[in-house]
Amino acid sequence: MEFGLRRAQGPDAGTYGARAAVIAGCAGTSNVLCGELFDVPVMGTHAHSWIMSFDSEYEAFKTYAQLYPTACTLLVDTYDTLKSGVPNAIKTFEYMRDNGLPLDHIGIRLDSGDLAYLSKKARKMLDDAGFPQAKITASNDLDEHLILSLKMQGAAINSWGVGTHLITAKDNPSFGGVYKLAAIQMPDGTFTPKIKLSENTEKVTNPGNKKIVRVYEKQNHKIIGDIICLEEEHFSEDEPLLMFDPQETWKKTRLKPGEFELREIMVPIFLGGECVYTSPKTMDIRKYCLEEQETLWEESRRLANPHQVYIDLSQKLYDTKRQLLDEISNAQLG
Amino acid sequence: MEFGLRRAQGPDAGTYGARAAVIAGCAGTSNVLCGELFDVPVMGTHAHSWIMSFDSEYEAFKTYAQLYPTACTLLVDTYDTLKSGVPNAIKTFEYMRDNGLPLDHIGIRLDSGDLAYLSKKARKMLDDAGFPQAKITASNDLDEHLILSLKMQGAAINSWGVGTHLITAKDNPSFGGVYKLAAIQMPDGTFTPKIKLSENTEKVTNPGNKKIVRVYEKQNHKIIGDIICLEEEHFSEDEPLLMFDPQETWKKTRLKPGEFELREIMVPIFLGGECVYTSPKTMDIRKYCLEEQETLWEESRRLANPHQVYIDLSQKLYDTKRQLLDEISNAQLG
Repeated sequence: MEFGLRRAQGPDAGTYGARAAVIAGCAGTSNVLCGELFDVPVMGTHAHSWIMSFDSEYEAFKTYAQLYPTACTLLVDTYDTLKSGVPNAIKTFEYMRDNGLPLDHIGIRLDSGDLAYLSKKARKMLDDAGFPQAKITASNDLDEHLILSLKMQGAAINSWGVGTHLITAKDNPSFGGVYKLAAIQMPDGTFTPKIKLSENTEKVTNPGNKKIVRVYEKQNHKIIGDIICLEEEHFSEDEPLLMFDPQETWKKTRLKPGEFELREIMVPIFLGGECVYTSPKTMDIRKYCLEEQETLWEESRRLANPHQVYIDLSQKLYDTKRQLLDEISNAQLG
Repeated sequence: MEFGLRRAQGPDAGTYGARAAVIAGCAGTSNVLCGELFDVPVMGTHAHSWIMSFDSEYEAFKTYAQLYPTACTLLVDTYDTLKSGVPNAIKTFEYMRDNGLPLDHIGIRLDSGDLAYLSKKARKMLDDAGFPQAKITASNDLDEHLILSLKMQGAAINSWGVGTHLITAKDNPSFGGVYKLAAIQMPDGTFTPKIKLSENTEKVTNPGNKKIVRVYEKQNHKIIGDIICLEEEHFSEDEPLLMFDPQETWKKTRLKPGEFELREIMVPIFLGGECVYTSPKTMDIRKYCLEEQETLWEESRRLANPHQVYIDLSQKLYDTKRQLLDEISNAQLG
């Protein structure tokens, strides 16, 4: 679950960030506006202030259970998780059972302390009290590394709420992508390629009106790499395909027909200055995104040293780029 | 200058972030919407795409100079800073001089490469060509440490454009502050203090309806520290003032009358659910902010290991907090 609104850098960052998190795989978000705008599941629980505004924790829990019996996740760490929160949650679930309230959406949320230890202890307390269906949610500065560590420790956590480190990636807080002019369309419809130089070879732009062809291994539909090429280029699955690294050009692969599949992955958004695209529903984008994730190799999905998907240039684009670079450097030599 | 819009996490993050940067001391922003909304100076120059959309760099510069002669900063690194950009900028300034255009707002912007080396070389080329008034602006992933390093290297840079690392702080990308319930106002107007416990002592909230009293050294109006206290408390400059660290309470200071000045720094924003505050103009907030920065000791303003301003609790608030903590832990002991 995405829990990041209060740590986002403004309301639109929080709301579009929550939408992005859901698209990438979160089951839902605590951002109610995001749920309203994009029709995505809203989930979460009350704040500590809910508990603190009552005279007792039990009274706060019981009132919440009466109001939201079908989404009854109780935050148990306002005073003391194991001595106060979990016992009062169990007392509340007993009250719900005794009063005929539904018991299939009950749970607790741990939001501080040693989540591995507390979750195992709380699991046992809930099970012993006759509530094995009660879910345990965890939150508190979680990120992918902490979640992996908690899973490896056998923490009894069913659901994860991630806020701060999902709404703003700590190790990459600002996206380094930029727009650069790549080509100018002439009155006759053709494109004049343009290039931006840089001291850093990798930052020299790729000139021309381009498209991207994704190359899959035929046998398992996993991605071999992407080829950035000129719009007018065509590749055939019936002919051998040469792929090479655009910086270290001696790194080459030649794929044989039958080994690979091709797919053009770009979709027009603006044509002739007009927006020609209608965005699918957020939950449909999420479904597409999860399917696309399946085309990545396991080696690209691990946290430590993931394999990076190859992004190559076509021979024609590579040659166009080299030619423009030579023209400029020759002009500077005089 | 604040240059961060394209790296911000959404339009409002970019626009309110630019406003914040100006308040904290930036001379202006490249965010035109921010300038429009908050009446702050807008500054910057053209994009690389401006240059690339012309057949030659000189033609692009000359056209820009004709359009914006009074804000004529030319971006010189599209092709090659010293071989192409700076010579074409000089040729443009010569054109401006020969055609009677004003020459008091001319300059260049370096956006890549070795900024120390390039700025010194460009300075000499501009001076030798008779344009000592031409300003040199630098940008390219700058942060406070790089700027300090460039200054220490004697870089000939007059103006700094900071984007990525200003709009999102790399070392602290999400603000850890939270709202917690501190007190509930009773029908009779009094406040019942509330507390939120935590395993981490520093995260236990401070209960009650509070205010902040700032303590200055009288002689130089520098901040000694802040005292968080209950709203009803009063301190006098005519009586000795005890300050102590709320965690390490043996760290104490007793100030004598005549040594210190007091100021209540909180201003009501909402009263009885109504907003009672009108925000000053952004440039007036900036002026206030710059004055307030002068109340910090130099030792608090350095980049490496800055002295942290002391934030203490009043004895009464400290006692209230201890009492609530004891009540809760006694109740849990049973």
